[in-house]
Amino acid sequence: MPSGALSIDHIGVVVRDLDAAAADWQRRFGAQVLGTESLDHLGIEVTYLGVEGQSMVQLLKPRHGPLADYLAEHGEGLHHICYAVEDIAEAAARLAGGAAVNIVRGGRGRLACFLPERVNNVIIELTEVRPSF
Amino acid sequence: MPSGALSIDHIGVVVRDLDAAAADWQRRFGAQVLGTESLDHLGIEVTYLGVEGQSMVQLLKPRHGPLADYLAEHGEGLHHICYAVEDIAEAAARLAGGAAVNIVRGGRGRLACFLPERVNNVIIELTEVRPSF
Repeated sequence: MPSGALSIDHIGVVVRDLDAAAADWQRRFGAQVLGTESLDHLGIEVTYLGVEGQSMVQLLKPRHGPLADYLAEHGEGLHHICYAVEDIAEAAARLAGGAAVNIVRGGRGRLACFLPERVNNVIIELTEVRPSF
Repeated sequence: MPSGALSIDHIGVVVRDLDAAAADWQRRFGAQVLGTESLDHLGIEVTYLGVEGQSMVQLLKPRHGPLADYLAEHGEGLHHICYAVEDIAEAAARLAGGAAVNIVRGGRGRLACFLPERVNNVIIELTEVRPSF
């Protein structure tokens, strides 16, 4: 059982055109681009939008792999909620209820994983907090 | 054009059983229940989970109306991102690009509206910030 509430690091939104989407979210919602990365080992490009220290929107363009399959099947839209955790190995073990979890080097150089089961059909990611944005 | 970035007030998640979902999110993620309301005029019940001053999860159980139709068609899951705005009439007019917007009394006694068009297939809500949670 967690002792405190986890905070929402970001909400993942799958998009087809990262540059166009980032420009659109900036224009509409005043969101600042906090960073853009190409994570080739995961087959994705991501752009973080928002305000430092607050929950961000992560625009996510899949190039290949499971997220490209997701985009092909479901189209653009809300994809996941990502909670910040201090110890991803501990949190993943606890939240996955013993199921295998694939912890990878995700955006911002952080360790990250998706939980193996959805919660109310919501895909949940965990990111280990580092002194980053 | 907004002068500053809007902050994310909450992420809306459509669920079938509000009490069970709230207990589950509390147990898993340590989220505190910040409030529960039955908004009869909108046909929904909502529970806000999270940490005061940070982006929250809004669990949303439709009883009737458009959100009940949404649940019947799509099932549970991520539904919308809600941005906090200071002046909802101004923000809605600007962000809806002149289209009609239905501003209602939403959760926490606040004025709220959904934008008429999705952004990258994401449903966007606006909530006018009041001294509330």
